[in-house]
Amino acid sequence: MDGRNFYDVTKWKTGDPYQDIGAVMNSIIADIKIRQTDSDENEGGKPGAVIYLPVGDYRLATQVVIDISYLKIMGSGHGFTSSSIRFNTPEDELENWHEIWPGGSRILVDLPAASDEEERSGAAFYVKRDGEPRISSVEFENFCIDGLHFVDDGTKKTSGENTYKNGKTGIYVESAQDSFRITGMGFVYLEHGIVIYHADALAIHDNFIAECGSCIELRGWGQASKITDNLMGAGYKGYSIYAQNFGGLLIATNNIFPRGMSSVHFENVMRSTITGNRFHSFYPGMLVFCGKCSDNMIASNHFFRDYEPWKPMLACDNGQDDGYGILNVSGNYNSIMANHISETVKKDDIKPKGTVPVIIHVVSGVGNFISSNHIVAMAETSVKREKEDEGCYSAQVEALLASDSLAPLKVTTVLIEKEARQNTVLDSGSEAEVVMDRTENAFRATPTV
Amino acid sequence: MDGRNFYDVTKWKTGDPYQDIGAVMNSIIADIKIRQTDSDENEGGKPGAVIYLPVGDYRLATQVVIDISYLKIMGSGHGFTSSSIRFNTPEDELENWHEIWPGGSRILVDLPAASDEEERSGAAFYVKRDGEPRISSVEFENFCIDGLHFVDDGTKKTSGENTYKNGKTGIYVESAQDSFRITGMGFVYLEHGIVIYHADALAIHDNFIAECGSCIELRGWGQASKITDNLMGAGYKGYSIYAQNFGGLLIATNNIFPRGMSSVHFENVMRSTITGNRFHSFYPGMLVFCGKCSDNMIASNHFFRDYEPWKPMLACDNGQDDGYGILNVSGNYNSIMANHISETVKKDDIKPKGTVPVIIHVVSGVGNFISSNHIVAMAETSVKREKEDEGCYSAQVEALLASDSLAPLKVTTVLIEKEARQNTVLDSGSEAEVVMDRTENAFRATPTV
Amino acid sequence: MDGRNFYDVTKWKTGDPYQDIGAVMNSIIADIKIRQTDSDENEGGKPGAVIYLPVGDYRLATQVVIDISYLKIMGSGHGFTSSSIRFNTPEDELENWHEIWPGGSRILVDLPAASDEEERSGAAFYVKRDGEPRISSVEFENFCIDGLHFVDDGTKKTSGENTYKNGKTGIYVESAQDSFRITGMGFVYLEHGIVIYHADALAIHDNFIAECGSCIELRGWGQASKITDNLMGAGYKGYSIYAQNFGGLLIATNNIFPRGMSSVHFENVMRSTITGNRFHSFYPGMLVFCGKCSDNMIASNHFFRDYEPWKPMLACDNGQDDGYGILNVSGNYNSIMANHISETVKKDDIKPKGTVPVIIHVVSGVGNFISSNHIVAMAETSVKREKEDEGCYSAQVEALLASDSLAPLKVTTVLIEKEARQNTVLDSGSEAEVVMDRTENAFRATPTV
Repeated sequence: MDGRNFYDVTKWKTGDPYQDIGAVMNSIIADIKIRQTDSDENEGGKPGAVIYLPVGDYRLATQVVIDISYLKIMGSGHGFTSSSIRFNTPEDELENWHEIWPGGSRILVDLPAASDEEERSGAAFYVKRDGEPRISSVEFENFCIDGLHFVDDGTKKTSGENTYKNGKTGIYVESAQDSFRITGMGFVYLEHGIVIYHADALAIHDNFIAECGSCIELRGWGQASKITDNLMGAGYKGYSIYAQNFGGLLIATNNIFPRGMSSVHFENVMRSTITGNRFHSFYPGMLVFCGKCSDNMIASNHFFRDYEPWKPMLACDNGQDDGYGILNVSGNYNSIMANHISETVKKDDIKPKGTVPVIIHVVSGVGNFISSNHIVAMAETSVKREKEDEGCYSAQVEALLASDSLAPLKVTTVLIEKEARQNTVLDSGSEAEVVMDRTENAFRATPTV
Repeated sequence: MDGRNFYDVTKWKTGDPYQDIGAVMNSIIADIKIRQTDSDENEGGKPGAVIYLPVGDYRLATQVVIDISYLKIMGSGHGFTSSSIRFNTPEDELENWHEIWPGGSRILVDLPAASDEEERSGAAFYVKRDGEPRISSVEFENFCIDGLHFVDDGTKKTSGENTYKNGKTGIYVESAQDSFRITGMGFVYLEHGIVIYHADALAIHDNFIAECGSCIELRGWGQASKITDNLMGAGYKGYSIYAQNFGGLLIATNNIFPRGMSSVHFENVMRSTITGNRFHSFYPGMLVFCGKCSDNMIASNHFFRDYEPWKPMLACDNGQDDGYGILNVSGNYNSIMANHISETVKKDDIKPKGTVPVIIHVVSGVGNFISSNHIVAMAETSVKREKEDEGCYSAQVEALLASDSLAPLKVTTVLIEKEARQNTVLDSGSEAEVVMDRTENAFRATPTV
Repeated sequence: MDGRNFYDVTKWKTGDPYQDIGAVMNSIIADIKIRQTDSDENEGGKPGAVIYLPVGDYRLATQVVIDISYLKIMGSGHGFTSSSIRFNTPEDELENWHEIWPGGSRILVDLPAASDEEERSGAAFYVKRDGEPRISSVEFENFCIDGLHFVDDGTKKTSGENTYKNGKTGIYVESAQDSFRITGMGFVYLEHGIVIYHADALAIHDNFIAECGSCIELRGWGQASKITDNLMGAGYKGYSIYAQNFGGLLIATNNIFPRGMSSVHFENVMRSTITGNRFHSFYPGMLVFCGKCSDNMIASNHFFRDYEPWKPMLACDNGQDDGYGILNVSGNYNSIMANHISETVKKDDIKPKGTVPVIIHVVSGVGNFISSNHIVAMAETSVKREKEDEGCYSAQVEALLASDSLAPLKVTTVLIEKEARQNTVLDSGSEAEVVMDRTENAFRATPTV
């Protein structure tokens, strides 16, 4: 498997891949450009290449700059492990650990922390090409990008390793691009996992993107792309999925776990689809549509808004009150259909005190269609989850065993603000549970006994 | 990674893979058959092999004929780029382009154009085996099949490179087969991307199949297969997905973009499932059920019927009037549930003039269940999308910015023809929007203010 | 592609991979552990490795024991073929078969049959590690695990090769683990395909798991995992998917075919999601929730309960009567929304005779929400499917051609038992079709003509 266009980083003539994989990759890319110069040789001429990372630890001290199409960077292992659990384990206990770092084909991102203004400089992989055509079919497959450490953010809310700040990004695509693929990858301890501007026909599929500030950010504008079948979970300051000025985005079949300021945050997104996902979060605002979000569908998703069970993160949240809504929607002609939306909170944690929590909150807009959603709301009344400070991975099971301590919680299942009109709410709450101007919006209550 | 059963096409003893990859692959397959002769040697004996295509341009002048199970043909890059944009760019501008052809591990299909009657002869890969058992577990993975050019079709509607005609097919499976996989591939500029007869337990997953006449055609009959998580878009003459006499097909989590005469076209298909997809098209008839299509489910999909924004294709369409329906259904006991169906047209483009466009059209059949669909219909009244002749990739964003020019459009959300009876329509349109014989079909109007 | 951490089993210094791949792999794992000793060398040190199986037949006489993270075991072909059809073909016909065994990168599991109590000893791959952290990111990719034969179970219901018993398991994970991946694999003729205890962030994606006793069993407890996009079908004694004490499991976009005692069986599972699947089975009890199953969503699935068409299996079933329900649910606050549920039976086969078959059966629980389900029920009245003894692969098509012989069948679409209260049933059956205490549960009938 070592044809002319196959490069094993451990066998390249220039540089030391263990000391600086970035310099090695840039040297390889330069070689490809020297060898592939003719754009129309016999109906071909620039097929691209594979850069292969065998399993190993590769320090990245120089940013990789990609400006050629058809480049596939691939490893043999996504290598995720929880650095979050590790960094919240006392040093002396770590001595007995089998291993303490992620693995697989692993990039150790050792770039200086970038400021927000210069965040591109903190990216391990930076894609930029001017001119025509748009850069196409770059593929990232089955390796690990590890940001190594988070750093103190000055807030004292939690330890430096829990801040989700380090100015590092895994993959940063600045130029408009076509038919990129990111598959089977692991991302961990990066402030930004993936940042892509101007995406078309992008596929982000079957990755593991967790313990990152934000996981996926699609910025600028974009169209006709898919984020499917990923395991993801952002930090409390960031987004698991963010999209801006997008049309035709498909977000499906993902399992998105806490924390995430939002699981999905759309700004001016239209004709996009959120379906078949499982969302789990610790705060209100799991899904937010802001700006002009129109003609989107949210159907057949499972939302579970839980409470924070883990001691190191108890002081952190996304700042939203319980009146904000699990779903907070501004925009027109969106559909919210056949979703299961569940909330379990500790009664004393509701803020401000006395608030009736809101589940679906339509802030503004016309023509939204909210139909056949099942809302389940519970208060944990007495029993604390045992072991809740031992990490979230057993919390679900504890919750199951403790479920006798749950009591139904009164909520507003749907709140339509005065600014919003001509919306339709069907079978998504009883007369008492739905708050809206029934002269301006259509309503049918879920029948009750 | 070069065991006994691993063949790198660039290292094979016979033929020149760059001049005729087909002859090389046929020679390799002959070698596998010579080496693997015993069908029961120590409970094994015919494990198959890998044929690997490193990244590169491989001309195919001889059809590859596959008649052994467990053959995996794999490359290292799907290599898609838009040939459509390139062929509609003036020659002199191309001089500055970085590259003008697709890439990755790329097959250049250089077969003579096949007539419709002999279309199999135009296939790059042709699978046929008589006798028992059915040929099993052939896998195609992560390479590009490029038909290179379309040819003049005599209609003068558009240039020769825009006709979607060239008599070429990517993969053509004629014999009944089991457990085939097509994954991570790119298909471009083929009249037929994939044609498969008599499929069982087929998986077409995570591919990029675009700018092909038709993308996927499942013919003859078939069962228990899946078309999932693909990016696709056919030409205006063909189908993105076509299935015939099929049972148990799952079409899910695909992002299917224009054009496509239909996005999904079923003929005598039963007990199949279309869910979690995003569909975008430029004509009525996005989804068509013809013949006896029964017991199928269409749920939680997003349909968007747009208008053609691209100058080179303005003269082309699929010939359907706006009374045809975005969904056109003949058959019994189908479900159409919880879909978001959106239409944006220019008012002057509606044909015949004065037609009230139809969204869901039940032509014939009994027992169909149409429930909780959200229909959004808009007319673009004044402002043209800027840059609409620059290709569709920015059209979505322009639409977003121009959305103030949209006005609600009167449509028939559901039309049940007289031939159809005992159907049920719930919450899929107001009294005025649903046209049917209410004495023969059950109805509940979506409540209005 | 043969870096320091890449092991080709055919090139390893110790053992014969064709005689005992297990001994070879254990030797390789021992070598990795000798070479990778430092858990904090320069922020790394234990990246793991790839063990590669080229296409070939590898007998496994010794269990592989995995206790290191970041191990990727990968082949080049899932190699499935139907052993079930082959073992039900007369010996003399087999002489002309092209091949009679599965292929690809194939493990022939040649371990002694394990008793139920010691089932772990019958596993080809056994994962166990004590201490901290949990073992992470082991990946299994694109090879075949073949149990070779089933054995007589003493019941005489069917031949020994049809019993689904042999005490063999493909992959058995005993220890709590994180971020494992099983992708592109084939499993065949194993009593248990995959058994995993204490899963977290597990991905079982795009596999072929068929003709196994049970396909996937998630035991003990687990969370935040996904079973997506697989082709699967268990034997009549087992489960296609089983989960126990789980939270946050996503089962989506699978095509699950017969038989399977159940397609999905949950015990004490909560906040999990079953969506976008196609289920096909031959018995009642396709989906079973037992114990305390709460807060789960079943939405946008297609269920088809068929009858057994294949002679060798006619004497076998899962023992459930037609009053059991296609879906049998115990638990609270679950959602059953927008599903298509279809049943076709032979009228004479209904048991006990005269039973009105039940579709959705809520045995106990409160707060379940059953909304907008389309139930289709048919009796095959006269014509037998032709060729129904020739294997199920043509049965679907025959059913299509024979569909004129179908007549509507009277069923109870929803049955809520007396023990269950405060449930809501909307648009899931007419007044006559829904049986429940309407003073204790809320109801709205599907409108009829």
